[in-house]
Amino acid sequence: MIVVMKAGAGEPEVNAVLDRIEEMGLQAHLSRGEQRTVVGVIGRKPDGLADRLMAMDGVERVVPILQPYKLASREFRPESSRVRVGAVEIGGPEIVVIAGPCSVESLEQLLETAQAVGEAGAALLRGGAFKPRTSPYAFQGLAEQGLKLLAQTRAQTGLGVVTEVLSPAEVELVAAHADMLQVGARNMQNFPLLREVGRSRRPVLLKRGLSATIEEWLMAAEYVMSEGNHQVVLCERGIRTFETATRNTLDLSAVPVVKERSHLPVVVDPSHGTGYWSLVAPMALAAVAAGADGLLVEVHPRPDQALSDGPQSLKPDRFAQMMEGVRAVARSVGRSVA
Amino acid sequence: MIVVMKAGAGEPEVNAVLDRIEEMGLQAHLSRGEQRTVVGVIGRKPDGLADRLMAMDGVERVVPILQPYKLASREFRPESSRVRVGAVEIGGPEIVVIAGPCSVESLEQLLETAQAVGEAGAALLRGGAFKPRTSPYAFQGLAEQGLKLLAQTRAQTGLGVVTEVLSPAEVELVAAHADMLQVGARNMQNFPLLREVGRSRRPVLLKRGLSATIEEWLMAAEYVMSEGNHQVVLCERGIRTFETATRNTLDLSAVPVVKERSHLPVVVDPSHGTGYWSLVAPMALAAVAAGADGLLVEVHPRPDQALSDGPQSLKPDRFAQMMEGVRAVARSVGRSVA
Amino acid sequence: MIVVMKAGAGEPEVNAVLDRIEEMGLQAHLSRGEQRTVVGVIGRKPDGLADRLMAMDGVERVVPILQPYKLASREFRPESSRVRVGAVEIGGPEIVVIAGPCSVESLEQLLETAQAVGEAGAALLRGGAFKPRTSPYAFQGLAEQGLKLLAQTRAQTGLGVVTEVLSPAEVELVAAHADMLQVGARNMQNFPLLREVGRSRRPVLLKRGLSATIEEWLMAAEYVMSEGNHQVVLCERGIRTFETATRNTLDLSAVPVVKERSHLPVVVDPSHGTGYWSLVAPMALAAVAAGADGLLVEVHPRPDQALSDGPQSLKPDRFAQMMEGVRAVARSVGRSVA
Amino acid sequence: MIVVMKAGAGEPEVNAVLDRIEEMGLQAHLSRGEQRTVVGVIGRKPDGLADRLMAMDGVERVVPILQPYKLASREFRPESSRVRVGAVEIGGPEIVVIAGPCSVESLEQLLETAQAVGEAGAALLRGGAFKPRTSPYAFQGLAEQGLKLLAQTRAQTGLGVVTEVLSPAEVELVAAHADMLQVGARNMQNFPLLREVGRSRRPVLLKRGLSATIEEWLMAAEYVMSEGNHQVVLCERGIRTFETATRNTLDLSAVPVVKERSHLPVVVDPSHGTGYWSLVAPMALAAVAAGADGLLVEVHPRPDQALSDGPQSLKPDRFAQMMEGVRAVARSVGRSVA
Repeated sequence: MIVVMKAGAGEPEVNAVLDRIEEMGLQAHLSRGEQRTVVGVIGRKPDGLADRLMAMDGVERVVPILQPYKLASREFRPESSRVRVGAVEIGGPEIVVIAGPCSVESLEQLLETAQAVGEAGAALLRGGAFKPRTSPYAFQGLAEQGLKLLAQTRAQTGLGVVTEVLSPAEVELVAAHADMLQVGARNMQNFPLLREVGRSRRPVLLKRGLSATIEEWLMAAEYVMSEGNHQVVLCERGIRTFETATRNTLDLSAVPVVKERSHLPVVVDPSHGTGYWSLVAPMALAAVAAGADGLLVEVHPRPDQALSDGPQSLKPDRFAQMMEGVRAVARSVGRSVA
Repeated sequence: MIVVMKAGAGEPEVNAVLDRIEEMGLQAHLSRGEQRTVVGVIGRKPDGLADRLMAMDGVERVVPILQPYKLASREFRPESSRVRVGAVEIGGPEIVVIAGPCSVESLEQLLETAQAVGEAGAALLRGGAFKPRTSPYAFQGLAEQGLKLLAQTRAQTGLGVVTEVLSPAEVELVAAHADMLQVGARNMQNFPLLREVGRSRRPVLLKRGLSATIEEWLMAAEYVMSEGNHQVVLCERGIRTFETATRNTLDLSAVPVVKERSHLPVVVDPSHGTGYWSLVAPMALAAVAAGADGLLVEVHPRPDQALSDGPQSLKPDRFAQMMEGVRAVARSVGRSVA
Repeated sequence: MIVVMKAGAGEPEVNAVLDRIEEMGLQAHLSRGEQRTVVGVIGRKPDGLADRLMAMDGVERVVPILQPYKLASREFRPESSRVRVGAVEIGGPEIVVIAGPCSVESLEQLLETAQAVGEAGAALLRGGAFKPRTSPYAFQGLAEQGLKLLAQTRAQTGLGVVTEVLSPAEVELVAAHADMLQVGARNMQNFPLLREVGRSRRPVLLKRGLSATIEEWLMAAEYVMSEGNHQVVLCERGIRTFETATRNTLDLSAVPVVKERSHLPVVVDPSHGTGYWSLVAPMALAAVAAGADGLLVEVHPRPDQALSDGPQSLKPDRFAQMMEGVRAVARSVGRSVA
Repeated sequence: MIVVMKAGAGEPEVNAVLDRIEEMGLQAHLSRGEQRTVVGVIGRKPDGLADRLMAMDGVERVVPILQPYKLASREFRPESSRVRVGAVEIGGPEIVVIAGPCSVESLEQLLETAQAVGEAGAALLRGGAFKPRTSPYAFQGLAEQGLKLLAQTRAQTGLGVVTEVLSPAEVELVAAHADMLQVGARNMQNFPLLREVGRSRRPVLLKRGLSATIEEWLMAAEYVMSEGNHQVVLCERGIRTFETATRNTLDLSAVPVVKERSHLPVVVDPSHGTGYWSLVAPMALAAVAAGADGLLVEVHPRPDQALSDGPQSLKPDRFAQMMEGVRAVARSVGRSVA
């Protein structure tokens, strides 16, 4: 940690900073430049130190040197992690495609979709039973009934199930039916929920928040991991920008950035990332080329009757076509599809 | 609702849209321009209609005409709402200042701060017992013990208490001790939490999400109100932009925009909105000039020892000085300080 | 164009809007819903009509139906355009890689780089002679001398030259030496410059502005084309967001969006788009997978001595390695490298 | 400047950095922490050093300590600057209101507006003769004829004239007619234009770019000042965010931030900052409360016939009403209106 003093800071202010650092059992390293005095802080910093130094008189800025996450960092664990979900492994050489409808609507809809995506090469089934909807008047999901339909579909198709959990109180229920717990973008900083899925034994799919920095996203992973659950897969799903031609701006550069900073697997959701089905296939291919470990794709047999997210849902035949492209690009970067 | 057909859309596609609209018991109003065919939809639209029409073949775009919130809209209730919190009323002619520390740290700290801000003119006390922190290793608040200290401080100072609630399961506990429940920016779309505070009888201070549009913010208010609790006060606290000189970008234009679209009171938090104490007073004055109904300001007797948010906390004497400015600007726009 | 009247708009206000529309020789199409009156405007709208209607009493909103660009739109020209630069064609089945240093520094540096990138498969050479620098104290480029070095390098290597032009007065000079004129991100709305390159016969590489929407970018292309120069290639180079781990956020979804809306070729600059050389190769591959017609990549033989943009410049051997990946991904999507 | 080495950086990499720093005649200050080695660089840094160090092997990050602008900084000139325009001074105790139409349309329109705003208390007249328009088909301004109408209006009303200049070649012409040269948001990083107005003797109104950081804005001022023209007034006019309820997001916190970092005066444009006339007055008042030295406001006698920006233009009577509010708020913060 580096403390930059203001241009006009005098001896008493510099000394107060040095004293404070030493009181904490840390070493201060003073360096006087022509225009600024700078103090390096060496040793294990207690939480909140930066803010407390920043609030002292004469301090212009405090610059952290280390990233704030530990368990999630590649420095902590240099080899890449693999997360097992049902029969598949995310983070290995194989690309894992998770597909299915936005919302679970009925057994028929779910089964039809699951069979179609399974045949086309999806390894896991997605489907929402608890739906976070912007409007209180919108369809909120089938709740526990939806979970049961998911479990039933797994029994019939063999596809492991990924579904979202919205509140700490429902984690146990969802974990009883699902193979992987999804934490949605709007809940990326719902800290009680992160702690609760951290206490679960289920792997977690952690979506990036709508305006979360990559650092904050890794800190959210840290919350889950700090409770003992290290089976975290990150999911890039687009961030909010000024652009209106797409629902969000899919930040594919997050894939190689995460790979440099963290050992956790990262998958990409081109459906929410773009908002329009015609953009899903090109961005799915791009995600694979950028190094993603998997894809999360919305598929619905009849998008114009979907209870949510129809405009961004692929029909099964278009999904199958996309999967051919995914396989070809995967091969070109030395990978295959699970 | 207006459905814009694609340039190349033919009769069968237009007819399918017309049929779908009529099947729903709505009226379709066809209008053929030189380059596009447009269909107006008249009548009470079922939830999700826009997405379903948008997913039909030949449809380019669906343009909603009405705002999606009802109870929160000024169209629903033309006169401005007032929300009573303890002895004060937010949304009337008087500007209500809510001040106190970011976190409740000890009875001594809280009492000292409460007395100082009360003397300087604050009408309500803020203080966090449950703290949403970016890092799992940071101080997470005193929890129930913090709530008791807040209640004790209210007993001694007479100041009503505003404090944050983080999860649905804690709403009842927090409501038992506090006069107003704060929903933080990171929870603005935590829908189970919104529903739960909507079932409480306590007034709610609803912060704008870090990257929430004003429409989404009003939809969050709609969630609370749709459960029966109409005592909602909105709080602008800065949005996320590319600017790094401030912690957030305080969007003061949200104040007059909200006043046009909604009847709900709106207050401004210049502490989180800027992140630096030296910017708090100018932005507090600006907020009052822009028409805000109140302010939410962080004050700490010793910011350089605060367990959170020290850099943006005012010392009591600087808060008192700010309040003189607030009173003067309030008078200049025909208002006074509660 | 659709005019939405306010909830409270009365007959006189609606009639004034109808009269105004008819005065302009246009047809008005009135539609009264339960909560709003809406007026469709049919016919060829004069420039500025939306603003003038929007400023009328009782008008809530004016919704345009058509995109504002014409020559650049795919509706105007359904088949994809190809732009010839020297011996290569951008926009056809072959992917065109443009590579070279950020700044032209010396003949030696330029020749060394050109030979290396040419051997590795680049089809065109980039290099800046006029440099737009954030600081007036930074290296501003070799100006005319730099142009001469570029022309000399073309003579020796056979690679066509792409270089930036900063002001209308220099267009003729730059066009005399270069094969393609680059308009930089900061000049995307420098309208006199756009008009001037529109009067030139050289093809134009038009970078997307730092915070430009795709629509504004296509409008900038329209400026160039409206002067008679239809040889425009668009270049996505990252947009500004809150993320700080990358210099910009490379918006690859712009590639398929542009392909839907326009017939113009689109290339991607992963160097400026990310800001760090280690992210360039994955994003270059992703760009090709997303459907880009080419790449613009910064290469420098000694990045730690570069006069600009060293951190995002690839060394020649890393560029050669990237090109192998580009070729493989290109093949996987049915294309090849020029 | 601080160089942070990567976790795995070894002796040879650290030594190479130390050598490079000493080769440049600078002092290196080595500090080894538990997890990172950090090198402080002391002495006058040559341009581009940070990028060159950043491109060296083993370097993780380079952190600048000083701001990159000099002449524009308050460190360079602690007392606030005042800029004289015609008979008025911007940056002193008096708030200067600049008002007028977006575009100069006719002598009649200009005179009518000038008389109205002058009577209501505006000190300077604004009006565009060269208009930067998003569409090549939109009204582009009356050009030289517009400048003459402005000069004529000044002769009749005594109000000094502020008008925009779009290209370096037109600076001399515009300076011959206007009292102050406006550089628009889209040209904030048009460096040849900044240099040219820097060589003029006219004061410059420098608008903040659509997505410019405050640091980049001050660097743009530095460009003008580095050519010898120190008469620069900054103008906040809103930045681009995801919010769509306003045309831009007016960043009023930029006012106190600029006041801390620079000695230059700063004014606010609530017309472009919001895009809707009903939001202009509240934001104008807020700007004054935040400490702005002036306002730039669009006024048109008949907004529904304006050739540009009608929706955000105030009618003269509403402008007069706003001015009463401005005067009251100015008094409340110890200032008056020029």
